[in-house]
Amino acid sequence: MEVMEAIRQRRSVRAYRPEPVPAEALEAILEAARLAPSASNRQAWRFVVVTCAHRRAELARLARRQDFVAQAPVVIAAVALEPDRVMPCGVEAYAVDLGIAVDHMTLAATSLGLGTCWIGAFDQDGVRRLLGIPEQYKVVALLPVGYPADTPRPKQRKEPAAIVSWEVWTS
Amino acid sequence: MEVMEAIRQRRSVRAYRPEPVPAEALEAILEAARLAPSASNRQAWRFVVVTCAHRRAELARLARRQDFVAQAPVVIAAVALEPDRVMPCGVEAYAVDLGIAVDHMTLAATSLGLGTCWIGAFDQDGVRRLLGIPEQYKVVALLPVGYPADTPRPKQRKEPAAIVSWEVWTS
Repeated sequence: MEVMEAIRQRRSVRAYRPEPVPAEALEAILEAARLAPSASNRQAWRFVVVTCAHRRAELARLARRQDFVAQAPVVIAAVALEPDRVMPCGVEAYAVDLGIAVDHMTLAATSLGLGTCWIGAFDQDGVRRLLGIPEQYKVVALLPVGYPADTPRPKQRKEPAAIVSWEVWTS
Repeated sequence: MEVMEAIRQRRSVRAYRPEPVPAEALEAILEAARLAPSASNRQAWRFVVVTCAHRRAELARLARRQDFVAQAPVVIAAVALEPDRVMPCGVEAYAVDLGIAVDHMTLAATSLGLGTCWIGAFDQDGVRRLLGIPEQYKVVALLPVGYPADTPRPKQRKEPAAIVSWEVWTS
């Protein structure tokens, strides 16, 4: 699928069919994350791929009982290994880096007909404990992956003029 | 261009040809940002598109004298409007959101034959002052955009086994 088409089609999928994610598709999605750029090319990340139904149910519970998280046959926890690193501009490098890597995964998934949903509402300590992630690391997102069972709705976005300024700031 | 191909080809371009970025290409790149997802769909961002040679030279100076930044005919400053927002998981929403939006732009640019480079090493106050950005906002990245003048090198990335864990944490 073309890049712009994937960007247009990517959406937050909140209902999944039970069919498993084919191994080659999962491999491609993880490869998309692996190839992502990161500040100083640190690649300070790890992706925990959860397929166990019990653990997925626990992840859904820890994500404010968003049951669809457990419905997806795969949930990927994206973990930052250096959550204290800040770029010279003052922005947290780990959050941008993981943002890029997970975005790569969402677009790769879309291009393969799979759905995803960024989950940021979860219990950090609880997820770390469930997956055995040492507490010096930080889970940046949970990403359910599976075949969509819901119907796409049109995207709600601001108009271009509301988000673009030319040459200098305008608001 | 296919999504996976764009992910493979995207790289940090640090030399640019002088040809301008066609208006339709720039429009597509900004559209890619506009369609990006954000926490609670806040879209708390603005993209300042700089083409003025004088300002680009100043941006390069403020980016630790990385001269190639001024070489690119367009530099986009990606600005977060809500830099204090934190997700329930404890991760800064603004950094992830802008990470996603700028990643969308880099992949859209790649698919159009254009190069980009994530710049995080810059003087935050200086860039805000130069572009007239109010100080309650935060510039997350500078993104030069233009036709590449350098030669691609192979990506240096960790092996898959070094970044993926199955079911539970492994290191």
